[in-house]
Amino acid sequence: MGNDVADQTYRQVMTVDPPPATTPFEMATREFVFGEVWRRPGLSRRDRRLVTLTCVAAADAPQPIEDHVYAALNSGDLELEAMLEFVLQFAVYCGWPKASHVEMHIRQQWARIREQRGEEVTPWPMLDNDTLGPNDWDRRIERGAQEFADVNLVPAPQPDSAYMHAGILNFVFGHVWQRPGLTRRDRRLITVASVAIDDAPMPLWSHVTSALHSGDITKAEMDELALHFAAYYGFAKAEALSATAENAWANRPR
Amino acid sequence: MGNDVADQTYRQVMTVDPPPATTPFEMATREFVFGEVWRRPGLSRRDRRLVTLTCVAAADAPQPIEDHVYAALNSGDLELEAMLEFVLQFAVYCGWPKASHVEMHIRQQWARIREQRGEEVTPWPMLDNDTLGPNDWDRRIERGAQEFADVNLVPAPQPDSAYMHAGILNFVFGHVWQRPGLTRRDRRLITVASVAIDDAPMPLWSHVTSALHSGDITKAEMDELALHFAAYYGFAKAEALSATAENAWANRPR
Amino acid sequence: MGNDVADQTYRQVMTVDPPPATTPFEMATREFVFGEVWRRPGLSRRDRRLVTLTCVAAADAPQPIEDHVYAALNSGDLELEAMLEFVLQFAVYCGWPKASHVEMHIRQQWARIREQRGEEVTPWPMLDNDTLGPNDWDRRIERGAQEFADVNLVPAPQPDSAYMHAGILNFVFGHVWQRPGLTRRDRRLITVASVAIDDAPMPLWSHVTSALHSGDITKAEMDELALHFAAYYGFAKAEALSATAENAWANRPR
Repeated sequence: MGNDVADQTYRQVMTVDPPPATTPFEMATREFVFGEVWRRPGLSRRDRRLVTLTCVAAADAPQPIEDHVYAALNSGDLELEAMLEFVLQFAVYCGWPKASHVEMHIRQQWARIREQRGEEVTPWPMLDNDTLGPNDWDRRIERGAQEFADVNLVPAPQPDSAYMHAGILNFVFGHVWQRPGLTRRDRRLITVASVAIDDAPMPLWSHVTSALHSGDITKAEMDELALHFAAYYGFAKAEALSATAENAWANRPR
Repeated sequence: MGNDVADQTYRQVMTVDPPPATTPFEMATREFVFGEVWRRPGLSRRDRRLVTLTCVAAADAPQPIEDHVYAALNSGDLELEAMLEFVLQFAVYCGWPKASHVEMHIRQQWARIREQRGEEVTPWPMLDNDTLGPNDWDRRIERGAQEFADVNLVPAPQPDSAYMHAGILNFVFGHVWQRPGLTRRDRRLITVASVAIDDAPMPLWSHVTSALHSGDITKAEMDELALHFAAYYGFAKAEALSATAENAWANRPR
Repeated sequence: MGNDVADQTYRQVMTVDPPPATTPFEMATREFVFGEVWRRPGLSRRDRRLVTLTCVAAADAPQPIEDHVYAALNSGDLELEAMLEFVLQFAVYCGWPKASHVEMHIRQQWARIREQRGEEVTPWPMLDNDTLGPNDWDRRIERGAQEFADVNLVPAPQPDSAYMHAGILNFVFGHVWQRPGLTRRDRRLITVASVAIDDAPMPLWSHVTSALHSGDITKAEMDELALHFAAYYGFAKAEALSATAENAWANRPR
């Protein structure tokens, strides 16, 4: 493959000119990551951004976070609202501290893009407390159990621990997964990448299985996700994701 | 729940005024993390700090590390000596590089608090070599094997590898777990959070099991720990911790 | 590049026949990881194993750990003694729990290889307490400060915290880095990969800088390390390693 195609893909994805590539790592980044992975069909560029953002935010790698946040906003592939929903979904699966870090970078890059465009850098609008969902606790837990079942394709757990009650039923499925701004499929892309990073076996199995069995993510899309994930979070962890996907697909209901 | 209660909890925990919350992530932080998680009974605020510090240090997220180190010291919940013992315990379970990073922040925040209070910023006192424990190797390894058994509730491993001999028996249980400055229960809180982050299955199982079976951490406290951990390191890894705790509790000796 | 060359490299590295590659991830593993990365000059296969083992052990990915531990021992590239020293060095930089997990796999794969060869599976020999180094604390701390300076090319820190005193000066540099079984260069390879995984900025900077400025790892070798690391731990974290190496090289003493 010629360098030109890889450079062109770099420009489209990163929205800036490629820097010179002189080391083996930089050349492989250009040839493999941009020249091959990002150019593949099967996942949209927006889908690949959600996976990439999850990986760079989890890897806590300052320059890649900055570059990919900038590119996602600057390309228009992700609107600010979707980007901020990404942060909350990511916080749930990879933890608050890294989410806080990536949101700081979103503020900076959003302001930088506004300035570059000669637009006013205004404060982000305040969110209304009405967006926090029903505050009738019984109704919220009931609705959380339903959402849990809809997302995971298995019955909701009993509210018999702080984690299951206040965490899973009240907050994660009682609120976050139901928020507008990202589709359920978007949230699955972020979540599958997150659990592949964490590589706790049960969450990996359950989220990959439900993503495939629900039909929200096709097998071909999951295969692409595994390769894209390998590029950004390494072939070691990607092997567990790939094996789990094969297994979940072999055991799909027919 | 009203914003007022969440804001008040934020002030108590972080020892500064809450910033405005405008994004979904920030609102969930205020409502869920401060409005719900930190306000729950079952673990003391000091206990929650040890779990939180482990999570933010492992996540390697600069601003949260700075904020929580400042808050822990400024509130007086953790004295400098306890904080520095936390670093060593954390180094063992999450690795030296991140421990080095968090200790640098402790130096900075400790100096900042001193300055804010109009106190002199003095060098930390040198530690005496006598604090390094017994230096008769046979006695030290023997004592390490005993401490291993006391902490883990299973017999100590044979000294048949560098890791087991020079590492586990000589240093980790032969010295670190026996140091003053933190109680064994404190060290368990840090360690359980650390192994939940690492999610190597056997260490997770063994530290959760021994924390519960020893009675050092009650089942209700472990449940709170799992929820608090979910908030700071994500629900993916917390699920493995939660499931391990249920399993260990079901198999407790009766 | 033909499949044959990639398959042949797979056989040489993994010491078993390659499985069929059907998904994009599996094909990229074959073509990119084995067909390109492992075949490159600049680092020996043994060097690449130390980097790979660090990555798969840190990623906590069960199947890759098993496969690479088996391959490292079965190829004879790493003797059991060197492998067990790897575990202790890895424990220091990536934490005890994952080290415990990889050592369990070493026990299993070592026994499996012995059985495959029709050799007796004997218990590993016990280590003598004399191997734990000098037990005069003053002498040990003094020697640790010297080793710290030799490895890091900067003066040793003051013993003013538990981490610096009992941890860094007494144990990490007072003992681990001085153990036989691995060379200082071997320990640098493991350590550079480990700090790139952790990506705490200061340890990354200091270990990459001292590896290059000492001459223990050449710039060309570091560049290969960055690419190999990218394959196994992702291009996101590898970018920080690569940038740090460029920076350290530009600022080398001349």
